[in-house]
Amino acid sequence: MAIARVYSEVVEAEGHLIDSQILNVVFDTVVRRNASFDVLKFTIGRSNDEPSAISMRISAPTKQILGQVLEELVALGCRMAEPHDALLREADRDGCVPDDFYSTTNHRTLVRYQGQWIEVQHQRMDAVIVIAGGAAACLKLRDVRAGDAVVCGVAGVRVMPEFRDRDRLGFAFMSNEISSERRVEVGVSRIAAMMRDVKTEGGRIAVVAGPVVIHTGGSPHFQELIRGAYVDVLLAGNALAVHDVEQALFGTSLGVDLDTGKAIEGGHRHHMRAINTICRAGGLRPAVEQGVLTSGVMYECIRRGVDYVLAGSIRDDGPLPDTIMDLRAAQDRYAEALEDVRLVLSLSTMLHGIGVGNMLPSWVKMVCVDINPAVVTKLADRGSSQTLGIVTDVGLFLHRLAQRLR
Amino acid sequence: MAIARVYSEVVEAEGHLIDSQILNVVFDTVVRRNASFDVLKFTIGRSNDEPSAISMRISAPTKQILGQVLEELVALGCRMAEPHDALLREADRDGCVPDDFYSTTNHRTLVRYQGQWIEVQHQRMDAVIVIAGGAAACLKLRDVRAGDAVVCGVAGVRVMPEFRDRDRLGFAFMSNEISSERRVEVGVSRIAAMMRDVKTEGGRIAVVAGPVVIHTGGSPHFQELIRGAYVDVLLAGNALAVHDVEQALFGTSLGVDLDTGKAIEGGHRHHMRAINTICRAGGLRPAVEQGVLTSGVMYECIRRGVDYVLAGSIRDDGPLPDTIMDLRAAQDRYAEALEDVRLVLSLSTMLHGIGVGNMLPSWVKMVCVDINPAVVTKLADRGSSQTLGIVTDVGLFLHRLAQRLR
Amino acid sequence: MAIARVYSEVVEAEGHLIDSQILNVVFDTVVRRNASFDVLKFTIGRSNDEPSAISMRISAPTKQILGQVLEELVALGCRMAEPHDALLREADRDGCVPDDFYSTTNHRTLVRYQGQWIEVQHQRMDAVIVIAGGAAACLKLRDVRAGDAVVCGVAGVRVMPEFRDRDRLGFAFMSNEISSERRVEVGVSRIAAMMRDVKTEGGRIAVVAGPVVIHTGGSPHFQELIRGAYVDVLLAGNALAVHDVEQALFGTSLGVDLDTGKAIEGGHRHHMRAINTICRAGGLRPAVEQGVLTSGVMYECIRRGVDYVLAGSIRDDGPLPDTIMDLRAAQDRYAEALEDVRLVLSLSTMLHGIGVGNMLPSWVKMVCVDINPAVVTKLADRGSSQTLGIVTDVGLFLHRLAQRLR
Amino acid sequence: MAIARVYSEVVEAEGHLIDSQILNVVFDTVVRRNASFDVLKFTIGRSNDEPSAISMRISAPTKQILGQVLEELVALGCRMAEPHDALLREADRDGCVPDDFYSTTNHRTLVRYQGQWIEVQHQRMDAVIVIAGGAAACLKLRDVRAGDAVVCGVAGVRVMPEFRDRDRLGFAFMSNEISSERRVEVGVSRIAAMMRDVKTEGGRIAVVAGPVVIHTGGSPHFQELIRGAYVDVLLAGNALAVHDVEQALFGTSLGVDLDTGKAIEGGHRHHMRAINTICRAGGLRPAVEQGVLTSGVMYECIRRGVDYVLAGSIRDDGPLPDTIMDLRAAQDRYAEALEDVRLVLSLSTMLHGIGVGNMLPSWVKMVCVDINPAVVTKLADRGSSQTLGIVTDVGLFLHRLAQRLR
Repeated sequence: MAIARVYSEVVEAEGHLIDSQILNVVFDTVVRRNASFDVLKFTIGRSNDEPSAISMRISAPTKQILGQVLEELVALGCRMAEPHDALLREADRDGCVPDDFYSTTNHRTLVRYQGQWIEVQHQRMDAVIVIAGGAAACLKLRDVRAGDAVVCGVAGVRVMPEFRDRDRLGFAFMSNEISSERRVEVGVSRIAAMMRDVKTEGGRIAVVAGPVVIHTGGSPHFQELIRGAYVDVLLAGNALAVHDVEQALFGTSLGVDLDTGKAIEGGHRHHMRAINTICRAGGLRPAVEQGVLTSGVMYECIRRGVDYVLAGSIRDDGPLPDTIMDLRAAQDRYAEALEDVRLVLSLSTMLHGIGVGNMLPSWVKMVCVDINPAVVTKLADRGSSQTLGIVTDVGLFLHRLAQRLR
Repeated sequence: MAIARVYSEVVEAEGHLIDSQILNVVFDTVVRRNASFDVLKFTIGRSNDEPSAISMRISAPTKQILGQVLEELVALGCRMAEPHDALLREADRDGCVPDDFYSTTNHRTLVRYQGQWIEVQHQRMDAVIVIAGGAAACLKLRDVRAGDAVVCGVAGVRVMPEFRDRDRLGFAFMSNEISSERRVEVGVSRIAAMMRDVKTEGGRIAVVAGPVVIHTGGSPHFQELIRGAYVDVLLAGNALAVHDVEQALFGTSLGVDLDTGKAIEGGHRHHMRAINTICRAGGLRPAVEQGVLTSGVMYECIRRGVDYVLAGSIRDDGPLPDTIMDLRAAQDRYAEALEDVRLVLSLSTMLHGIGVGNMLPSWVKMVCVDINPAVVTKLADRGSSQTLGIVTDVGLFLHRLAQRLR
Repeated sequence: MAIARVYSEVVEAEGHLIDSQILNVVFDTVVRRNASFDVLKFTIGRSNDEPSAISMRISAPTKQILGQVLEELVALGCRMAEPHDALLREADRDGCVPDDFYSTTNHRTLVRYQGQWIEVQHQRMDAVIVIAGGAAACLKLRDVRAGDAVVCGVAGVRVMPEFRDRDRLGFAFMSNEISSERRVEVGVSRIAAMMRDVKTEGGRIAVVAGPVVIHTGGSPHFQELIRGAYVDVLLAGNALAVHDVEQALFGTSLGVDLDTGKAIEGGHRHHMRAINTICRAGGLRPAVEQGVLTSGVMYECIRRGVDYVLAGSIRDDGPLPDTIMDLRAAQDRYAEALEDVRLVLSLSTMLHGIGVGNMLPSWVKMVCVDINPAVVTKLADRGSSQTLGIVTDVGLFLHRLAQRLR
Repeated sequence: MAIARVYSEVVEAEGHLIDSQILNVVFDTVVRRNASFDVLKFTIGRSNDEPSAISMRISAPTKQILGQVLEELVALGCRMAEPHDALLREADRDGCVPDDFYSTTNHRTLVRYQGQWIEVQHQRMDAVIVIAGGAAACLKLRDVRAGDAVVCGVAGVRVMPEFRDRDRLGFAFMSNEISSERRVEVGVSRIAAMMRDVKTEGGRIAVVAGPVVIHTGGSPHFQELIRGAYVDVLLAGNALAVHDVEQALFGTSLGVDLDTGKAIEGGHRHHMRAINTICRAGGLRPAVEQGVLTSGVMYECIRRGVDYVLAGSIRDDGPLPDTIMDLRAAQDRYAEALEDVRLVLSLSTMLHGIGVGNMLPSWVKMVCVDINPAVVTKLADRGSSQTLGIVTDVGLFLHRLAQRLR
């Protein structure tokens, strides 16, 4: 008589398990993996304020499958019923980690070290956790050094997903669906309120912006936000700055006159002249100091002491001296500038928006505005409780947002 | 020795042949058909104000190919050098015409009848020309009656394309490219100026609108345009009116509260109740008279005497008693309402926008606004000198347009 | 001392409450409406196969809010703990119902009549339920006659949502996200398997198709599906048939040669000639019988006895004699043709796809294929367990599907 | 009596002025700038094979406007009637040029130096022309060194636009319109024929590819093209290579199983493990040599000696050791790899596609495939005679292309 060997483990979770759809996803995960679950205990929150709690046995036909399922369940917020310290292994060489390394989510994470749960610093997704001097921190793979103590497996790891907050302003209201068939003014009001809240509480706001902000006439409204102290950090690429300077110097964007819509120059000559002018001045900041650049988004940033980081890309013309063409450095500068930021507005830029989204912990909200619903959907991949997507014209959006914040 | 037989014909054209790219298209057409051209005479306009003129011999290897090429060249504005009267044949039965019938463009067309060039009435595309009582008119195929004298072939037909006007306000400026990366405010200024011009000259303006106008919060701004007498005709479907009524009665659109963005009702109950309410009143007009409907786009139309036509579609709920579900009648009512209209605004509706575009002569300009560039591209198929496409959020667009027209 | 008056009611539900996210939505609904819930009893399904059950008290500050919440909860699958017969009221006039009428979902529904739960026939959304001769059926508002007994309120109504089936082939696998960044071949395999399953079990398959099927070269592959007996019903508009005939007669679609991609005719002349030819024959069927139409999608339908319904629209040219221009009749004919259909493929048509989606009960699955993600998202509005969206090129999709079904 | 001073200059041009719409654009440019033209002489090509020639006086109210108009006319292919040597000025510092520098187009360009017309090497757009050792070459602004002799103004510069070739295979046929409503198989045939032609003539083909090629299942078909020697250079980013490796090692792409469509891993763990594995091996090439990487696009490139360049971006995970994160170097390596390439296929990548488009001279054709029409439109900005845009599913496109090339 054959007896099927089964591997199993008891896991637990508590919190707003139903509201956050976590329970549903947990069950899905188990079944999809051809494993099974057996609920041992479940207490439901009787009202909206009370948390629920679950204990269940997960069983799988092989040890490997069980391991994979547990890995996924931990990422969703479950933990092993029996607590162990996290397993640490040494990185064998710079930029490499053991094969069973724990790959992070962007949720708040604790690891158990010497019997204590300690919080992981610099939380971000797709990182590894390294423990040093009794503290745990996320490290990008490339920043790992040979000999670092790397968390492996999922034992002793606890992930605390953000629970979707039903009553809170802002994110709950239109998170289900990304559609151009929405009244943008409703979104604008919420975002304005969130921005005011963040500033009132002393928080920082970052704006990630693509050149379309300039092309669509959003520049004066964006400048108004900067002057109103609603922008603490500007993260962008070379193109935004070049188009901004072109408009400041010549009134055009890629040769199109922004007041009349006429293509003033056949080619891109204004564009190249703008770059040449800033190069001669030695960069944007010297250009402002020398009185060469006297208006525009970059000018306002420099005048108001708003931190800005321009990251290079393969399609850049120039680039401006300010643009960081070493992308390792650019990523590090972006990440640094995002420290302590509480809200990010991503305006018409898939590339930089995804870059920033990858760096943020899940508790920093991101508002993504783009006229292309596919871009908004892609940026909302971080999760609907972390991202608010608005499908609209970014120039008109900024006009309304600036009005609302007056 | 074999001598290749060649069929040929001399055609002529004059006007702004280069500016309008007509010459280029004519040459393309000939070459694509494996025919050839031999320019007999060409005089170029020396300056922007002077027309050019060309005379050329078209040669083709078969009579049939020559016929096809000539057919296309006539549609582009060429005419046979030797004038003939148009060939008339009798329609053999209702709704049918001889196989070689002349299929119209939407450009101003003349036919030669008894030695005189007479202008065709009710010009529209994809129609046939019938001559009766010495007058020529476009008729839809289904309106042809057995025995009608139908113009066949292209001899005696002369098409006068609209020449693209370089200096004129409005259409020239952004006709090359449909893109979301434009400053919409430039387009808004031009459209506002066009609307004022049309009204000053006593012309009529039609608006074709989809329900997205309501969803995106464009309704109050659209109402302002109506109150400002900038709308003479509203062409729409059942959905626009139902969503408008739902908002007027319940403050929602498909159950979504337009002020808070919250989905008030799980289902579409407000939607169905709105229909039921108007059905009970006997229609929109009685509902206004009975004081049941006291605000909204349809209310403003009725109160201001703006003509409206609602055409049914397969996806309609209800429909409202006002919606014309017999589409032959709906098309006829649309076409009637478009008589003497000089400018059409098509707002977020591909279906009704294409329907209207099909009915218009080429000298009636159409402004198409949609957030989806593919829709704008499709509507711009009429030709770039006839259509101005704007890719933006229609709710915010109407807000800016109403501001500009104040 | 003021005591806040509270209105409350106990409701119950059972089934796969967590998997289907129903519990989550129920709680959301209550909180969004400023009501509150108190879970009296909850038993969780211990494993994937076992249902869960809940009993909870819903409380609200006003009777009206309580009523609205209950209305929504019933639509989600909850029922009053204390059973009552459904409330019936007489329709006061043709096409009108009492204001508190019950507006249907597309889920299987029972009403309690004379102490018995009876199933509602012809289930569809946005209808009313009329009881006659002891039987209950969905009726469109316009089909209600004065004196009909109409179900009002939610007492005595029970909705049975389709529970999302985790293990079942086909729908679970990619339901979360609509994206063009997917391997379509995976979807094709599933759809082919579903089609085979349906046919093996003797079920019927309907295809809703737009003219893009022809433009993109999908026609020969679609014809192969028809010859393979995978299509029982074709629902389309005038345009599909006209483009199909144009291709059959002239090898072009809107004048574009489908083999070379060259625009053969400047205008739309082939298009109009195709219409004229079918009109002369007296319709598509006579054209096939007379040997005028000898290939194409419509030809294959007629030859294989596939039922087809062509619904008119405001943008139609012609139309063909087969096109039903009275849209009340067209909707009725569509609905009739969809009886007993078990699977619907909607190919590149938002208009007809939404029309069909509105008519279907929730247990008929719909596969929506379009190159525009916004269209697929819109069609998927029915619910992710009812609709499978694929973002791809429909011509190439049909090629792969036909290959897979060989 | 006031006499308006007018500045004027005679310019000449010859070639297929009408076919290429150059004449039209020249006239547009003059009028848009408030200048005027007076045609002195025009001879039209009598047939399709004969060139036309024009001589005209351009007049403008100010010297500056005249200069700007001439600048644009030269870019379009006109030249001053009176020949002068090009004006050379010294670059004042590294990376900077005099303000009136000549900014290049991507068309073949000649400069007059010491009475001789010499051809400019390394032609690309938005560059400057530097003369050294009697030879002229395009230089990117950042590569200019203090003291370089830079061409300024437009005297002595001659641009030779590619004339659109009516009869040539490939590009003429669908250049007018970018639409998803096309039969892709027609495009596939043309592209296959072009690829065969290029290879037969010993030319090189470059493919620029985004990660969507992998997600959509295009990988095996792309590998077939590589094995068939149809790819000489692969230009991509980090993401393509990482997804390719993930698929090769684990059968997934971002955790989605490419065979079943199931999301195998909750997180992106496979993705990070793939990076870790290649980092440990020391890069892609060592991974192939060590037998770690044994299939996929990168594997085939390495095995077949296909040159590849991976350029970094701000959103990169990892990156792989092969990815060039210094973007100045990456741009230089891209440009080098594109030397002597005669055809470029850009597959689902706006970023790298635009980057490559910027580097190409106008006589290198580019085929752009993307499911998003806006991306194709944007890439087609180079000009319709240089770019062929196809809106379709890239996975299915590659399947058909590989079939066609067998």
